Amino acid sequence: MAKISPRTLSGFMELLPEPQMKMEKMMSVLRDTYSLYGFTPLDTPVIESAQVLLAKGGGDTEKQIYRFTKGDSDLALRFDLTVPLAKYVAGHYADLSFPFRRYQIGKVYRGERAQRGRFREFYQADIDIIGDGKLDIINEAEIPAIIYKTFSTLGLKKFKIRVNNRKILNGFYAMNGMSEKAGDIMRTVDKLDKIGSEKVRQLLIDEVKMFPCKADNVLDFMAIKGDNAYVLASLERYRGMDETFDKGLDELATVAKYLADFGVPEENFAIDLTIARGLDYYTGTVYETEMTEHPEIGSVCSGGRYDNLAEYYTDKQLPGVGISIGLTRLFYVLEEQGLLSDDIITAPCDALVLPMTEDMGFAVAAATELRANGVRTQLYGEKKKFKAKMSYADKLSVPFVILVGEDEIAENVVSVKDMTSGKQEKMSAAAAADYINQALSQRRNAPVIK
Amino acid sequence: MAKISPRTLSGFMELLPEPQMKMEKMMSVLRDTYSLYGFTPLDTPVIESAQVLLAKGGGDTEKQIYRFTKGDSDLALRFDLTVPLAKYVAGHYADLSFPFRRYQIGKVYRGERAQRGRFREFYQADIDIIGDGKLDIINEAEIPAIIYKTFSTLGLKKFKIRVNNRKILNGFYAMNGMSEKAGDIMRTVDKLDKIGSEKVRQLLIDEVKMFPCKADNVLDFMAIKGDNAYVLASLERYRGMDETFDKGLDELATVAKYLADFGVPEENFAIDLTIARGLDYYTGTVYETEMTEHPEIGSVCSGGRYDNLAEYYTDKQLPGVGISIGLTRLFYVLEEQGLLSDDIITAPCDALVLPMTEDMGFAVAAATELRANGVRTQLYGEKKKFKAKMSYADKLSVPFVILVGEDEIAENVVSVKDMTSGKQEKMSAAAAADYINQALSQRRNAPVIK
Repeated sequence: MAKISPRTLSGFMELLPEPQMKMEKMMSVLRDTYSLYGFTPLDTPVIESAQVLLAKGGGDTEKQIYRFTKGDSDLALRFDLTVPLAKYVAGHYADLSFPFRRYQIGKVYRGERAQRGRFREFYQADIDIIGDGKLDIINEAEIPAIIYKTFSTLGLKKFKIRVNNRKILNGFYAMNGMSEKAGDIMRTVDKLDKIGSEKVRQLLIDEVKMFPCKADNVLDFMAIKGDNAYVLASLERYRGMDETFDKGLDELATVAKYLADFGVPEENFAIDLTIARGLDYYTGTVYETEMTEHPEIGSVCSGGRYDNLAEYYTDKQLPGVGISIGLTRLFYVLEEQGLLSDDIITAPCDALVLPMTEDMGFAVAAATELRANGVRTQLYGEKKKFKAKMSYADKLSVPFVILVGEDEIAENVVSVKDMTSGKQEKMSAAAAADYINQALSQRRNAPVIK
Repeated sequence: MAKISPRTLSGFMELLPEPQMKMEKMMSVLRDTYSLYGFTPLDTPVIESAQVLLAKGGGDTEKQIYRFTKGDSDLALRFDLTVPLAKYVAGHYADLSFPFRRYQIGKVYRGERAQRGRFREFYQADIDIIGDGKLDIINEAEIPAIIYKTFSTLGLKKFKIRVNNRKILNGFYAMNGMSEKAGDIMRTVDKLDKIGSEKVRQLLIDEVKMFPCKADNVLDFMAIKGDNAYVLASLERYRGMDETFDKGLDELATVAKYLADFGVPEENFAIDLTIARGLDYYTGTVYETEMTEHPEIGSVCSGGRYDNLAEYYTDKQLPGVGISIGLTRLFYVLEEQGLLSDDIITAPCDALVLPMTEDMGFAVAAATELRANGVRTQLYGEKKKFKAKMSYADKLSVPFVILVGEDEIAENVVSVKDMTSGKQEKMSAAAAADYINQALSQRRNAPVIK
């Protein structure tokens, strides 16, 4: 029979079992952390009516969307988790209690140009807090705590949550009479890290057509850097010139004020006036998260406050604040950079039971006992030579092998072999479970990032 | 602005937060149970090349498949998790160790006719054990243990795992010279439960064109019922007439022999010679699982042994055994029948912190302390009247409310209100965490099915 090549489409991540276990661990940390902050899990369809999904109009992303018909239906695959959230909240408004806090970890689809490290199917891991009419600033203050907890639980040590407030930016541009050029200015200022302030100044003058003194104003403002107290004090000098600015400064001060109570170390947090976020709909606090030793990766967790989640579906004013982690891309870069830890258990089981006799009853019962005590146990019942069985355990990096031969059956014990140390001991199956659980407790809780 | 109705497509399940929590609990039980038996989690793309996905040819399902083009690519959404597994194992053969045991819980797509309780997007939860060339019968014996553990952990008490062996059926038909009619006979016998043996007999004679004595042979065989020992003894009477039959009987006896060691109570297991499973590729043990008080639901977990997983992709002989749970449908029928328990916590948080003062620092710190001790905690910072705050907690069925007013701050305590008993007590935030963890330990482990 002619064979068809079992290929996977380019731009679609498909992992081998070992890295997949690391990916699962990351998802499990995200689920647990988001739950710890009182977010409820949500699951929406991957396929939606194209009319619903593209209510806003697609803009740049429209070409990337997977859109097709089935029967009479014009369908599309979701390209983010925000539009489905908007649809969900508008559609189930009467059944929800506000603030409504949900997390969703799911695949989204964008038919981007195939490119190394670019994915057409990828996981996003989002949280959002949606208010009904109003939403208190304390919610914006809480977000850095969630980001901090998430990344520190994943094992990341060196990272910084960079925070700004769009009202401060908008107010600043307004007080300088530059509101109309704000978009162009922000896009240019965004290049500060890459090309430096001298070149940005020249672009502001040549391309954004600003007077040199105004360009200097912008650069002076963006240069305000330091600890929270210093930056906030420096911003106080602009107070009283623009109402929006003053409101933004109050909000930023509130976010900074609660940091310690939320358990966020100041070294993991920085006010950064150059952060604007591309999306037009952010209206308050905005967030980016940088791995400080790998700035080239860009932000690994971003988001912000918006004023109106679902305006295409409902007249209700639904302000919110949310952040998103591009999980597939994050996993890809962590793996590329060799930053995934080898401490976590990637074997499909904690213990591999090897029966050495024809009748496997005793070995089966031992496996059942181990499982009853929470040990992930695989029974290896294939008729192979001992060497082949041990080589299987080795290849899978199984932490413990349980040998059950005639001697063990006669003595009503099993032989437990620690595959790391090579040490082998006889004990009852129940004792083996305790021994293995004890030995693995640290690795089971090991962080996934080095 | 004209609004677009935020509708969800028919045939696509989208749950409110409370049932969604129950669904998550079910998925979590499945992940944990499958892991306990040494299955590794796998995640394959939802979109595959249509050529790869339809290598086998679609047959009846082909019309149901979501197939579309993007650029030059002919694409399709997966309609089960078996074909992607075959592709995966064939494609990554050199990187895998066999037996390869994987579980996958993922959405699959079938554009079925819209109908109540029928889904076009639904979760399947599959496990498979794939051998390289050979696969020992012990793997088939292990499957009932996994089914038993899964459903008993979900909370189901009254269920029965029905097991048969295709070799026994094929051998029986061969020894009676009915091999050619085996397919028609099996389809007819499948109606025994619905229409009774008299009508099945008539159909066998009239439509399958069998001699009455042969039809009686079939019905006598199918009527063999009783405990394992009795059924196996009855089958022994047919031994020696057909090699395939004898092999099947040996296999079935082996599966039954290890049941007790695998921890499966005999009351949850039955040999049932009427079980055949529709799919042609099963070649050994076949499984169905019936909720004994709800036979109308049909099998909630089915599968079997097959000889060649990936013949369309590779020359390697890859025998396997697997089972599948149609999770979305199972959830739907459990909910419909009122069989989902209300004991599990469906609130987004265990504790809702209500700050009663302008400065929320103390309340925030209390929330941080609770979270550090594993209590899922939501901070409610909206400026609302006390009554509105409590009503929010009520609506979400939050188990505990933490009140933080001036008195509490002065005394360095929080007031913990048990929303079930109404009891309210002051204690430190750390003590509150212990108190809540203690009080909720049972509900956190409550089974999801009544």
